[in-house]
Amino acid sequence: MASAGEAQGDGVRDWAPSRVIIAGVSPEVDSGRFPIKRTVGEELVVAADILGDGHDVIVAVLRHRSTGATGWDEVPMTLLANDRWTGRFTVTARGWHEYTIQAWIDRYLTWRQELIKKHEAGQQDLTSELLEGVEQLREAGERANGPDADWLRERARLLAGTESQESRVRAGLKQDLVERMARYPDRRAAITYDRSLRIMVERERARFGAWYEMFPRSASSVAGRHGTFRDIEARLGYIAEMGFDVLYLPPIHPIGRAFRKGPNNTLTPGPNDPGSPWAIGGPEGGHKAIHPELGTIEDFGRLVRKAREFGIELALDIAFQCSPDHPYVREHPQWFRHRPDGTIKYAENPPKKYQDIYPIDFECDDWKALWAELRDVFLFWIDHGVTIFRVDNPHTKPFRFWDWVITEVWTRHPEAIFLSEAFTRPKVMARLAKGGYTQSYTYFTWRNTKKELTDYLTELTQGESAEYMRGNLFANTPDILPEHLQIGGRPAFMTRLVLAATLGASYGIYGPPFEQCVGTPLRYGSEEYLNSEKYQIMHWDLEVSWSLRDYIARVNEVRRENPALQFNRNLRFFDIDNDALICYGKSTPDMTNLIVVIINLDPSHTHSGWVRLPVHDLHLGSGLAESYQMHDLISDERFLWHGETNFVKLDPQVNPAHILRVRRKIRTERDFDYFM
Amino acid sequence: MASAGEAQGDGVRDWAPSRVIIAGVSPEVDSGRFPIKRTVGEELVVAADILGDGHDVIVAVLRHRSTGATGWDEVPMTLLANDRWTGRFTVTARGWHEYTIQAWIDRYLTWRQELIKKHEAGQQDLTSELLEGVEQLREAGERANGPDADWLRERARLLAGTESQESRVRAGLKQDLVERMARYPDRRAAITYDRSLRIMVERERARFGAWYEMFPRSASSVAGRHGTFRDIEARLGYIAEMGFDVLYLPPIHPIGRAFRKGPNNTLTPGPNDPGSPWAIGGPEGGHKAIHPELGTIEDFGRLVRKAREFGIELALDIAFQCSPDHPYVREHPQWFRHRPDGTIKYAENPPKKYQDIYPIDFECDDWKALWAELRDVFLFWIDHGVTIFRVDNPHTKPFRFWDWVITEVWTRHPEAIFLSEAFTRPKVMARLAKGGYTQSYTYFTWRNTKKELTDYLTELTQGESAEYMRGNLFANTPDILPEHLQIGGRPAFMTRLVLAATLGASYGIYGPPFEQCVGTPLRYGSEEYLNSEKYQIMHWDLEVSWSLRDYIARVNEVRRENPALQFNRNLRFFDIDNDALICYGKSTPDMTNLIVVIINLDPSHTHSGWVRLPVHDLHLGSGLAESYQMHDLISDERFLWHGETNFVKLDPQVNPAHILRVRRKIRTERDFDYFM
Repeated sequence: MASAGEAQGDGVRDWAPSRVIIAGVSPEVDSGRFPIKRTVGEELVVAADILGDGHDVIVAVLRHRSTGATGWDEVPMTLLANDRWTGRFTVTARGWHEYTIQAWIDRYLTWRQELIKKHEAGQQDLTSELLEGVEQLREAGERANGPDADWLRERARLLAGTESQESRVRAGLKQDLVERMARYPDRRAAITYDRSLRIMVERERARFGAWYEMFPRSASSVAGRHGTFRDIEARLGYIAEMGFDVLYLPPIHPIGRAFRKGPNNTLTPGPNDPGSPWAIGGPEGGHKAIHPELGTIEDFGRLVRKAREFGIELALDIAFQCSPDHPYVREHPQWFRHRPDGTIKYAENPPKKYQDIYPIDFECDDWKALWAELRDVFLFWIDHGVTIFRVDNPHTKPFRFWDWVITEVWTRHPEAIFLSEAFTRPKVMARLAKGGYTQSYTYFTWRNTKKELTDYLTELTQGESAEYMRGNLFANTPDILPEHLQIGGRPAFMTRLVLAATLGASYGIYGPPFEQCVGTPLRYGSEEYLNSEKYQIMHWDLEVSWSLRDYIARVNEVRRENPALQFNRNLRFFDIDNDALICYGKSTPDMTNLIVVIINLDPSHTHSGWVRLPVHDLHLGSGLAESYQMHDLISDERFLWHGETNFVKLDPQVNPAHILRVRRKIRTERDFDYFM
Repeated sequence: MASAGEAQGDGVRDWAPSRVIIAGVSPEVDSGRFPIKRTVGEELVVAADILGDGHDVIVAVLRHRSTGATGWDEVPMTLLANDRWTGRFTVTARGWHEYTIQAWIDRYLTWRQELIKKHEAGQQDLTSELLEGVEQLREAGERANGPDADWLRERARLLAGTESQESRVRAGLKQDLVERMARYPDRRAAITYDRSLRIMVERERARFGAWYEMFPRSASSVAGRHGTFRDIEARLGYIAEMGFDVLYLPPIHPIGRAFRKGPNNTLTPGPNDPGSPWAIGGPEGGHKAIHPELGTIEDFGRLVRKAREFGIELALDIAFQCSPDHPYVREHPQWFRHRPDGTIKYAENPPKKYQDIYPIDFECDDWKALWAELRDVFLFWIDHGVTIFRVDNPHTKPFRFWDWVITEVWTRHPEAIFLSEAFTRPKVMARLAKGGYTQSYTYFTWRNTKKELTDYLTELTQGESAEYMRGNLFANTPDILPEHLQIGGRPAFMTRLVLAATLGASYGIYGPPFEQCVGTPLRYGSEEYLNSEKYQIMHWDLEVSWSLRDYIARVNEVRRENPALQFNRNLRFFDIDNDALICYGKSTPDMTNLIVVIINLDPSHTHSGWVRLPVHDLHLGSGLAESYQMHDLISDERFLWHGETNFVKLDPQVNPAHILRVRRKIRTERDFDYFM
């Protein structure tokens, strides 16, 4: 008879004697091992299976708080159907937050429910029932204090009194009693879900932002000169006019000389070739130093401040690897793997050798000091005003290092944002996101057809992964010039821009190659850029006539003006009867901002088709022929649509994409038609 | 820098330095809180996401054992795709079993993979690589013992020796070395999944059996006389001829006199009315006593033994509730709820009062003694040879009581079988099954159309619930005469029998009403039988001409002869282009026993249609016109079918169901056609 009190399951602490089960809580990632993610001001809807034996009345509350706070905020949960309950709250402050559920069988409400049934069934003698109620009220009176205690005792006296049974029953059933009793429930037999589930509450930029990547050394206005932070300052107006929120710079640290790469990744650099900025570290320093040709740490601080004046935040590239000239190699050789001859192992992907790169050995005996130093790299740049980090190749370093270092940094600086640059197997990408990465690079870059885009974005935004993984949809990167952009010309760049900017609340481009529609690969079949800036300095004329800068500016303006486009989970795909056309929408929860995007995915031909919108779900009227305006926010055209099915036609040479704001009809006293 | 060692997630015990993640283990019920269920001889396939950073080679093993055993049995896991791994083992003994997963990065295999790549890429100097291999082999030699240790040291000497690089590389890559090294992996950095997942391994009857329910008191061959255990002995031949495995008796205990119910649930019984056997307890005793008119405890023991001789097991009804005359009421009044006037609360469902029934208060202060006594009821009957229990209304008692009592009883007696008679909300039924119930009553009794049957049986047999919940499909019960049987006549009884017996590895009927096609309700709109045996003694002439006894006998014989019908998870539905016809199949894993069932669900009309079988999946040949025989195991008809699509026609008045054994063509040297 030993183990009854510890009967397994459902987090029962002791018999005590809870008969309520709480299970199937959602959202919950991997049994609560990993937090979900939200940004300040977002609402969280929590659901759970809550059930008891028999028919007694259950009351359930959703409890939440900032981690570390004493006590809980509580909101009531309501039964949907099939023993599924739900509750919701809004997260209001950055940092760790947590939630759990408490439920109990409410003896008073159970008594009340039975009294109603018996009373309605006309049961004659309710003396015994009323006496039970008196007991309930007296006990609640003892739990209460002040006027409520008196009030409850008074009502108990009334129920026990000499008035007619009918009036005593009515007094026992009155709504004011329900409300008063709800303040003092008997929770001695309450059960609390045995996990407290964590939320990383982040700032808006964790969810919504347009990123622009560029190489500082190509920022000079003078051809052939090495760009500097001052040159980037001069570029800020151009970037801000295009409407970007984040300016992401590849590594800005000293570049190694040993085995330096030449143009187009050749092994025979000239004496003036700048090398790859990812070969980090030279005599001038490592991950906390500035490449001298870019400027000083003071110049960098100035750039951070200037950018902020333009509404732009800087993001740095954190690539935990070292050139052979990195100070760590000399000062901490134990942080690297060694070959039997004592030399340090360089990176290899047989038959390729990367002799300019030493991987760090995260499992070395001195791992504690190593990890602390790498954490301090983040903290160093945070001290210098940078809180957004794009992390290079995190999938080649241990998951547990990231779990640890992100927790360490983010707990101190919940404003910090980490973008995982892992283009690898899906479960590896998911695991990095679970471990704390704010955002993740995605396969979007290679998804081109309607089916590919629909399937992948549905997975990203509608599945459980949306709880912990936020895609940052890059249309191109210095490593990836996708085939679509090599072939499709300017319409393809416009298409990919609109897809990225409207499918993803966060998206990015690598410019100026993107806005200048640069599509020439190293060779066909390769995704490398010809004359890649990774290995050489380029000079860009920003005034070329074919630049998409104005188009990008308008798209980013539309994103800022329309809150529907600032979220991911609200994405819905709509039917359109032509596979070259894709249609989807996003709206705010109150439907006041509803955007429908229609894109011609074929850069070579004009396509037309019939769009089918779920007018009822979108609050566009129940009639099949009710009209509403579709206002193209790019071209400023307006279309009058009727009912579910409407015609669209897109010529990629003119405008490959509609970003349509839905304007609903509003009626005045005179019954003129207006649209809001 | 404090918490690196305890970095959250994935069960890492210390850094130690595992880089492997084990997650998404399947099967796993509610994060491992509840066991899965298997019967002796069944294979368990376990899958998991197992991944590491980078490209190092991972080795994973599935570990399993009888709970309490020291050490583990291990079987290798293999990578399917997308970081999903799988392994399998067969459970061979009743009782608690457990499984978990261990995985590690195999340094030797990682080294070998890189050596192969470099060698194939023609890398000239592999000195350093060979030296690393020598180190690996020496370390393995230290972990090994006996001849293997010598063998590994010798191979290490060879790799370090003076032979040509080419021959040393070949020696390093040889398969014999892979096999030898696999015996001595370096598991210092292995990670073990942090849960040990439990399996309830039960006997075959937990999964497969045909149940027959009857009222002992109606077993007399003489009309008007109260049946006895001796009368049931005389009935055993009849039941065995029909092929039933389990004979389930409603409660056999003394019946209360207070507020006894009369015929058809009336409140005015005559002096000789026997009352409901579920009003348990009288002066003669309670849940451990025998109703005197049925016989003695010795008679009962004799019945148990005689039944066994016929291959039949007895199942008892455990209904934890008491008549006012039950000894518990006098001896343990604290086990019941009391009204304010001190009387014991009877059962109520306002406006109905069940004054003949006192519910037990599982939450009473004396719950420990109460629970122990109720457990002892099970143990008492196990001592008297009964190990199958049909538990009445478990959903009105606390889940945690069942969790505890089933664990208590089953851990001592893993031959015990518990059938949950909970017809209630789906999640309540699921929770009872998770807590340990061997089998569950289902909604099958009310599922009639093709869509209803397909959806519900798919949910029962294909979803996660199949891991813990086994349906026992009852076609009727003393409480449920479904509308279909009230209306459909004999064809409906045949249809429901074949559905129950072929959809469910376990199924049951309540006879003789079932085999005699009794379909008269108390009134239309009610599912109660007219003149229900629950309240009165009936006399059955077993020799009526319309009895389905021979049909039932044949169906149960087919079940015994065809192992495909003895499992649930192998159910697959097939297309048939007429909604009145349903088609499904079951097969053994090796496809040697493949049964296809086709049923006309409409008892009133002949229907025909085209069946579409997935011939490729069913190993019926790849050609679209290859022939195979369909052998009706009930009528002994044979049909020659060709390819995917074939015609069927069923007249419900003749034979509403085909149970077809598929006979595949086998060819001889002379190319005659034979079918096996």
